[in-house]
Amino acid sequence: MTEDDQELGITESKSHNTGEWYAEVVQKAGLANYGPEGMSGFIVTRPRGYALWEAVQGFLDAKFKETDVQNAYFPMFIPESYLEREKDIVEGFDPEVAWVTQGGHEELEERLAVRPTSESIIAPYMAQWIRSHRDLPLRVNQWCSVVRWEATETKPFFRTKEFLWQEGHTAHESHEEAWEETMTRLDQYESVYEDLLAIPVLRGQKPDHDKFPGAHTTTTVEALMPDGKSVQGGTSHHLGQSFAEAFDITYSDEDEEERVAHTTSWGLSWRCLGALIMTHSDEQGLVLPPTVAPTQVVIVPIWQADTKEDVLEYAEGVADDLADAGVSVELDDRDERNPGFKFNEHELNGVPLRIEIGPHEVEDGELTLVHRPDGESAVEDREDVADTVRSHFDEIYGKLYAAAEENLDGEVREADDRASILGTLGQHGGYVKTPWCGDEACEEEIKDQIAAEIVMVPFEDEDDLVDADHEETCGVCGEAAERTAYFAKSY
Amino acid sequence: MTEDDQELGITESKSHNTGEWYAEVVQKAGLANYGPEGMSGFIVTRPRGYALWEAVQGFLDAKFKETDVQNAYFPMFIPESYLEREKDIVEGFDPEVAWVTQGGHEELEERLAVRPTSESIIAPYMAQWIRSHRDLPLRVNQWCSVVRWEATETKPFFRTKEFLWQEGHTAHESHEEAWEETMTRLDQYESVYEDLLAIPVLRGQKPDHDKFPGAHTTTTVEALMPDGKSVQGGTSHHLGQSFAEAFDITYSDEDEEERVAHTTSWGLSWRCLGALIMTHSDEQGLVLPPTVAPTQVVIVPIWQADTKEDVLEYAEGVADDLADAGVSVELDDRDERNPGFKFNEHELNGVPLRIEIGPHEVEDGELTLVHRPDGESAVEDREDVADTVRSHFDEIYGKLYAAAEENLDGEVREADDRASILGTLGQHGGYVKTPWCGDEACEEEIKDQIAAEIVMVPFEDEDDLVDADHEETCGVCGEAAERTAYFAKSY
Repeated sequence: MTEDDQELGITESKSHNTGEWYAEVVQKAGLANYGPEGMSGFIVTRPRGYALWEAVQGFLDAKFKETDVQNAYFPMFIPESYLEREKDIVEGFDPEVAWVTQGGHEELEERLAVRPTSESIIAPYMAQWIRSHRDLPLRVNQWCSVVRWEATETKPFFRTKEFLWQEGHTAHESHEEAWEETMTRLDQYESVYEDLLAIPVLRGQKPDHDKFPGAHTTTTVEALMPDGKSVQGGTSHHLGQSFAEAFDITYSDEDEEERVAHTTSWGLSWRCLGALIMTHSDEQGLVLPPTVAPTQVVIVPIWQADTKEDVLEYAEGVADDLADAGVSVELDDRDERNPGFKFNEHELNGVPLRIEIGPHEVEDGELTLVHRPDGESAVEDREDVADTVRSHFDEIYGKLYAAAEENLDGEVREADDRASILGTLGQHGGYVKTPWCGDEACEEEIKDQIAAEIVMVPFEDEDDLVDADHEETCGVCGEAAERTAYFAKSY
Repeated sequence: MTEDDQELGITESKSHNTGEWYAEVVQKAGLANYGPEGMSGFIVTRPRGYALWEAVQGFLDAKFKETDVQNAYFPMFIPESYLEREKDIVEGFDPEVAWVTQGGHEELEERLAVRPTSESIIAPYMAQWIRSHRDLPLRVNQWCSVVRWEATETKPFFRTKEFLWQEGHTAHESHEEAWEETMTRLDQYESVYEDLLAIPVLRGQKPDHDKFPGAHTTTTVEALMPDGKSVQGGTSHHLGQSFAEAFDITYSDEDEEERVAHTTSWGLSWRCLGALIMTHSDEQGLVLPPTVAPTQVVIVPIWQADTKEDVLEYAEGVADDLADAGVSVELDDRDERNPGFKFNEHELNGVPLRIEIGPHEVEDGELTLVHRPDGESAVEDREDVADTVRSHFDEIYGKLYAAAEENLDGEVREADDRASILGTLGQHGGYVKTPWCGDEACEEEIKDQIAAEIVMVPFEDEDDLVDADHEETCGVCGEAAERTAYFAKSY
C-alpha cells in the first residue's frame, strides 16, 4: 500500500459504465467480495457492507416491534411436499430452488428445498397456532437468508443467489384487515428508503401477471437508479385466502363459526443496499447518508512537527465530545499517511463528514467541516460541536435526497402510443407512464422490443385514470384503458 | 380454551422425567414446536423463544463491539473442495454435513456443504484481506444458522440439526495474542451465563482428543443441569497455525518478513437457551431471570363490579410508569379470565414478577409483588414503582443464581480410583474430579462403562495438581497424573 495508492481509486465512469463502476465501488470501498470459485452469484459481505445491513435492520425492526410484529425463526429447509401444497408457489419457485439431497452419508428420502421464501413452512404452523378470533391478528417475522438459484446475471446486493432479508407473515380475520396490514408494511418500506436511505420511491401494485405466486395483490416500492433502471425496493403481498385454504388456516369467529383467515407476507432484502450504493456514490467512491454510515465523521488532523501536539490534543477533545454525544467518529491520526491520502481513502469509504483540524483551527477555536457528497466546506465554532455536526448531517441528508428526487422527477415521462413508449424508453430510460388496458399481451409487446416491463401500477385511489371515466385508450393496443402503467427497465 | 384449562399445565415431573418435563415446558410455554414431518431434529422457534435469543444476541453483540469485533456475513454454502483443504475439518465434520447437489433444474458440478461451521470459507478471505502486520488483528463475527446432521437424539435448543449461533474468527501476529483473544471470548461467554442467564459455569479446556478439529486448544464453559449432566455452554478455540497454513493466511511483519498468522474461532449457540430453560424452570412451567424475560412484569388487576373502574385506572397508571422507565410490562385486563387463570398462565410463560392490584392496594396506595421463582410476595408503596421493581428484579436474579450455584457446588465430588469414579457418577451424576494421566484410553474406560466423559480440564494455572509436584496418580490407570479431569455425563 505505498506505491500502489492509485489502486485505491475508482477508475470506471458512473455515467458511461454504470455496471463496472458499481462493481468497483462495492469492492474497493470494502463492502463485499465475490464468492469462492464454483459459487458464482454468491458474495461475501464485509464489515463495512454488513454494517449497512445492520442499520437497515435496526431501523425496520424497531418499526416492526412498534406495530406488534414478533420475531421468530423457522427451519431453513422446506420438504418438497410442503412446497407442493400451494400450486402457484411450486410453479413460481421450482426453477430457482437449491435442493439438499444428502444428510451426512445418507441419501434423504425426500428432497429438502433451501428456503426461497417461507410461506410454505410458516403457514402450517400458523394453522396450528390459530384457533379462535382471539388469536388474530397473528404477525411473525424472521430475519434470515434465502436462496434462489437465479440463472440471470448476478450483481452484488441487487441479485445474488443467496440474500439476506426479512420476511413477515400475518393472518387476519378479514380481507380489509389484511389489506391494512399490507399497506402498513409498504409504508414502512417506503420509510426505509425515504427516511433512512435518502431515496425517494414510487409506490403502487404489480400487474396481475407479475404478482407473487398465489397472491391477491402484490404491492411494491420502486426506486429509480441513475442509469434509468427501476429497482423493486420491497414488496408487500395481500395473499387473500389462497394460502389459508391450502394450509387450513382457519379460526372460529365470535359466533363459533369456522372461517378461513386472510394472510399477508412482505419482504425487504439487502437489494436496498444496492440501491443505496448506486444512487448516491460517485467517481471518488462510496457516498452514504449519515443515517447509515458506520463511521459518520472522520477527523483528519493536519500538523507540522512543531504544531503536532496541540493539533492532536485539540482533535482528541473534539473526537471525545462527538463520541460522548453518540456520533460514530474516527480520529485518523496515522503518522505514516499524509492528509491528502487520508482524504481520498475516507472519501472512497463513504464517510459523510470530514473535520479538518490544523493550527489555524486550534488558534481560532474553530473547525473546518467538509461534506462528502459535494465537497462543500464550512468553518464552524468548536463550541457545541455535536449540535453543529448533527445539523450538518441533516444538510447532507437533504442534499442526497434532493439530488435523487430531482433525478426521479425528471425521469417520469408520459407517452400515449407505442412509438413514443418505445422511443422514450430507448432514448431516456426512466419511467414511461401510459394508459393501459390491463392486458399482459400489451406488456409483452414492449418487453420483446426493448426489455422494459410494467414495474408499477398506481393504486386505484391514487390513479388519475380511474376517476377519468375511462376515456383514455391503452398506449399499446388502443383499447379502452383501465389503469395507468409505469414501464421501465429494471434490475 | 375454556374447559380444557388443565391442558395448559405441566404434567411431567422435573426430577423424575427431566427430558419429558423439559419438552413439555418448551412446547406449553410457547418457546418452540417440532419441525415438520420428514424433518425430525429441526425446530420452529416461536416468538417467546426467539425473544430469548434476541436477548442473548443483544448482550453478547454489544460486548463484541466494545472489544473490536466487526460483524460480517459469509455464504451459507461451502464448496466441498474448500472443506477438504484442512484435513481435520473434513474428518471432523464429514459425517454431519448436509449436501446441496441440485440448483434449480441442474445437477451441480461440485457438491456444496451447508455450513456446519465456517472456518473453511472464512479463512481464504482472511488470506486475501491480510497483507501486512497493520491489518492485524483481524476480527470478524457472524450471526447465522448452521446445520449438522446429527445422528443422535435431538432435543430442542440443546441438540438440533439446524441451530442458530454466532461464530467469531480472528487472526493475530503471535501465539500469545491469539491466546489472549481466545480467553477474552471465553470470558464473554462466561459472562453470558453468569450475568445474563443466572447460571454459574466451570471453565477450562477440552482434553486434546476432544478439541475442535485442527485446533491447538479448545476452551469451554460448562454448566451443570439439574439432572446432573453437563452442558458445553460455549467454546473458544486457539487454532494455532494449522488453518493459517492450510489457507495461506500470512502477513509481512515490521521487517517485511513473511509470517504465518495465528488464528482463533469461537462460538456460542442457542444451546444456552436450553440450559436457561432447564436450569430455572419448574413444575409450574418456565422460569426466567428478568434480564432476558420478554415480559418482565405482569399486572393482574383484581376487581368486583363496583371497584373495577378504580382498580383499572390505578393499574394503568402503574403500567405506564413502568413502561416509561423501560420495563417490559403487560397489563392483563382480560374480562373473560379470572385472576387464578391469569396467575397460572403467566407462571407457565415465565413472567418473573407479578403485581397484584385489588381495591385494598388502591386504597392504601400500595402494590402486592409476587416473585415467580418461589412465590414470595411483598407489599410495597405505589410511589417509585420503577425503582422498587428494579430492586425486586435484582432479588429474583440473585435467588435464581444462588439456587443454581448451590446445585453446582454440591455436585462437584472428588474420586481417586476407578471404582469410586464409576460409583459416584452412577449414584449422583454431577462432576467427578480426579487426577488424570492425560491418556485418552483412561477416559474411554469410564465412557464404556457409564457414558461419562472428561468434559473439562482446568487451565494449567488454575489446576492445583500442576503445582503439586505430580505426586498424585491417575484415578483410572494409576500412572503419574498430569492434570485434573472433570468427568460428567453430558448433553
